[in-house]
Amino acid sequence: MDHQAQLTQYLAAFLRGLSEAGVRQVVISPGSRSTPLALMLHRHPAFQTYLDVDERSAAFFALGLSKATGAAVGLVCTSGSAAANYLPAICEAEATNLPLVVMTTDRPAELQGVGAPQAMDQHALYGDHVKAMVDLALPEATPALLNYAHWQAVKLTSLALTRPQGPVHLNLPLREPLLPSAALPSPSGPSSQVLPVTHHVDLTPLRAVLQQRGLIIVGEERTPAEATQLAHLAETLGWPVVGDPLTNLAATATPNYLGQADLLFQAALPMPEVILRFGRLPVTKPVMQWLRAHPVPTILVENGAKYQDQLHQATWLLDQTVTEFVAAVTSLPLPAPAPAWLAQWQACQQHAAQVVAGVADQGLNHSTVAQGLPAWLHEQDLFVANSNAIRLVDRLALHQTNSVRIFGNRGVNGIDGLVSTVAGLAAGRQRPVTLLIGDLALFHDMNGLAMLRRYQLPVTIVLLNNNGGGIFNFLAQRHLPAADFTALFQTPQDLDFARVAALYDFTYHHPQTTSALQACLNQSGQHLIEVTDAPTGPVTTWEALVAAYQTAVTAHD
Amino acid sequence: MDHQAQLTQYLAAFLRGLSEAGVRQVVISPGSRSTPLALMLHRHPAFQTYLDVDERSAAFFALGLSKATGAAVGLVCTSGSAAANYLPAICEAEATNLPLVVMTTDRPAELQGVGAPQAMDQHALYGDHVKAMVDLALPEATPALLNYAHWQAVKLTSLALTRPQGPVHLNLPLREPLLPSAALPSPSGPSSQVLPVTHHVDLTPLRAVLQQRGLIIVGEERTPAEATQLAHLAETLGWPVVGDPLTNLAATATPNYLGQADLLFQAALPMPEVILRFGRLPVTKPVMQWLRAHPVPTILVENGAKYQDQLHQATWLLDQTVTEFVAAVTSLPLPAPAPAWLAQWQACQQHAAQVVAGVADQGLNHSTVAQGLPAWLHEQDLFVANSNAIRLVDRLALHQTNSVRIFGNRGVNGIDGLVSTVAGLAAGRQRPVTLLIGDLALFHDMNGLAMLRRYQLPVTIVLLNNNGGGIFNFLAQRHLPAADFTALFQTPQDLDFARVAALYDFTYHHPQTTSALQACLNQSGQHLIEVTDAPTGPVTTWEALVAAYQTAVTAHD
Repeated sequence: MDHQAQLTQYLAAFLRGLSEAGVRQVVISPGSRSTPLALMLHRHPAFQTYLDVDERSAAFFALGLSKATGAAVGLVCTSGSAAANYLPAICEAEATNLPLVVMTTDRPAELQGVGAPQAMDQHALYGDHVKAMVDLALPEATPALLNYAHWQAVKLTSLALTRPQGPVHLNLPLREPLLPSAALPSPSGPSSQVLPVTHHVDLTPLRAVLQQRGLIIVGEERTPAEATQLAHLAETLGWPVVGDPLTNLAATATPNYLGQADLLFQAALPMPEVILRFGRLPVTKPVMQWLRAHPVPTILVENGAKYQDQLHQATWLLDQTVTEFVAAVTSLPLPAPAPAWLAQWQACQQHAAQVVAGVADQGLNHSTVAQGLPAWLHEQDLFVANSNAIRLVDRLALHQTNSVRIFGNRGVNGIDGLVSTVAGLAAGRQRPVTLLIGDLALFHDMNGLAMLRRYQLPVTIVLLNNNGGGIFNFLAQRHLPAADFTALFQTPQDLDFARVAALYDFTYHHPQTTSALQACLNQSGQHLIEVTDAPTGPVTTWEALVAAYQTAVTAHD
Repeated sequence: MDHQAQLTQYLAAFLRGLSEAGVRQVVISPGSRSTPLALMLHRHPAFQTYLDVDERSAAFFALGLSKATGAAVGLVCTSGSAAANYLPAICEAEATNLPLVVMTTDRPAELQGVGAPQAMDQHALYGDHVKAMVDLALPEATPALLNYAHWQAVKLTSLALTRPQGPVHLNLPLREPLLPSAALPSPSGPSSQVLPVTHHVDLTPLRAVLQQRGLIIVGEERTPAEATQLAHLAETLGWPVVGDPLTNLAATATPNYLGQADLLFQAALPMPEVILRFGRLPVTKPVMQWLRAHPVPTILVENGAKYQDQLHQATWLLDQTVTEFVAAVTSLPLPAPAPAWLAQWQACQQHAAQVVAGVADQGLNHSTVAQGLPAWLHEQDLFVANSNAIRLVDRLALHQTNSVRIFGNRGVNGIDGLVSTVAGLAAGRQRPVTLLIGDLALFHDMNGLAMLRRYQLPVTIVLLNNNGGGIFNFLAQRHLPAADFTALFQTPQDLDFARVAALYDFTYHHPQTTSALQACLNQSGQHLIEVTDAPTGPVTTWEALVAAYQTAVTAHD
């Protein structure tokens, strides 16, 4: 596809987002860089455009329009000092809560900081005076980028309209030639309807959608109460639900929860008509890849309206808590679901669980610990560290004791600060915690052990030690020459963890069997339980399981 | 008062704010600069403190506490790179919506940027990863600064707790000696209770307060519908209400609205037991000065919860629209109010109105135009420009036609962009607009006239021309030597506005009598009506009115 066609489709997706989110009027100041955007806005039936050559005046005109109508009003100008003229009206809009959607066009990266004419740094040009600022990606007409452009327009406009309302800034870099295709594209990409962002959405219009064949995907940490509500929701709708260990859905023991998502989404699956998502995506990568490859109308329930849709595919965005949403849905008059849809998914899960259960026969290693730990603990919390630990539990665990709540730090998925977080968690909940953690993550936050000792917090650390971290064995890096791989990615620390335990007065254990390990758990006091394994152990196990599952499913078909 | 006593009282007010807004646990990392804050937190019965020497670990510990309890958790460290160690946990808290209240201490301004030890620029240290950042003022124990410290703690903690929850950053510069007084102060300053910020506040606890003798103060632009609701509220409670022209309360003709606030608050007034404020303060400066001098328990209704209380005196903050609040109050069972309280205020207003009415006898000048215009127009909007125009209308207008809605740009009160704003307003509301504006503001946005002509918008401009602006005649500058004053503050433009009108095809008028002016109003087309006056004309008039009112009230006493 040529540049002009890509530019045109990208901007068409962007304009559709503006229109769906509520922009009706746009004030344009003429310029070269803004040409394609101006032209397409002018030709688009959804927008009324006004023109003014003085950007300061244009911005105050837009302010007056917004004052008059209460609606979000767009502004478009070219690159350079033109954009700086918007600032006075932006300051007034900020102070009086008026939703201006400021769109500046910009030179692409290769013309930035090189003295190109009419180019200056437009990133964060309006500082804190806008509610949000985004530098858009360069136009491309891939499905991912069309969804992205649409989503950014919806997101920024919706943020402008969220109270306290105020101005937002979208900076659009555009490459020459700066003319769209003569013929505008017909709307493409997933059809999108964005409900107004509100804490009390009337779900009646979604009632028909909720009677289709659906799949629930839960991300982020969930409390046991939320997990119970989500299980109830899945049972009410007759839909399968997938998530990860942090959702605590396994502890509900609902038959609708399919714990082996990481296996399931690596083979053929029944096709849902609607996806119902809660928050960000779960840990499982195949779920994300499958969703990207199979776009389906999607309801995204996201408390706090941060518009965090990694896939830019949500059709409806609801700013609600799990509790609010489940209460609203279960109060709707809905017929009893047909059992066949769920049964197809349960059959897949049964295969997967059977395959995964075989791991227990391996004796004590990192895979068997990850599989068993959520079921071996009772009356305490389990904190699962990032990197390999969370992935192994996600893939291999089959059961979770009902009195065990699982936690993690999945905001930015760091291996830093995990011991300290567990210390705060134990202090705040006044409940024992077991921490499942790799040797690199434990090393990174060794100082957190001092907090555990100082406040004598009831924490047991189960250390998956492979002297250097195993996560990169799952990634493409492992095919590098061995010397490079060990130096850059294996990073052996050669630490004697018995000495670490002694330094902070932890009781040290190094069990050699699964039952010996189990005997160390659920004890009072502070314990460090070391389990050693080869860095490649889990990856070998996992690859065999994936192959076995795919074979089992194919044989069954 | 010595430094230590001031420091102690200031920090005590700050800690009271933290406690009232919901902080219960604070994780402290030892340091010199943070000593007084750490010590006072440690001794304060409302806070549980934890200690850790590694700030990175401390911040993750706080994150774990917040994860465990759902509450806002405080962090305190010293100046310099210590503060930088908080960033990893702040990023995680941002991504998982956890309310951390990060308090860094800092060197005062005189030790910034001069190579003092352990000093670096801590402003905006965490960039966009915190929801809000404030550099606090240096400790002082004046009532204004104690209220300020308290309000900032409440504001930032409340912002952290507003969904989507997340981290906030308070940077506190402190001077040596860094020790608080041995004895902690007893709580001082206005008693403060801050309700959780929510869109649906149960007003029942305020029912008793609403039966006291109250005063309603309305700021910001209000729609006619909101003005009607506010008038109904005032009548229901039996309370007087003051505001400014932008509230459109005058158009409701409610007997509870006292239009001459600028006069009333320059003499003795009956003392209310409670203040009910809507949004920011009105234009009238004496109202602000009176409130500052007479702190009274205050309910602040502020849609969007920006915590904009110039006085830092609000006792209850409600995040509600006027419509939501009035509906909630009028549904409460409240007894009929005793009429005496309102009658006292109405008597003052009667004196003031009588004094002000005399202005009409002066014949055509800036004061008489400002007084009459809101009553002379019909079936259109009136936009009142900033600087003198809004002040003259606020002080002198007595009536407002019910079909006239008044607008202005009072967000940041600029004299820029006013013509363009009116153009946008006329385009958006599709209704005629009269703009009352001074010559400097009109000059500033001359280019806005091009927008009016291009879109043939039905706008009449009433120009208060005194060749250079008269606002500074009301301020202390007027006592400067005449040459300095004219050069710096009078700024005569020597423009022939008949030519300006001709340039943009406006019909030009220069009436010499009030009735001639009135004949030019309410006409179709585009008009520029020039009214000339001496720069000192309005100030002479106003000073005479203030003196006459004060005499009248004293005579009456």
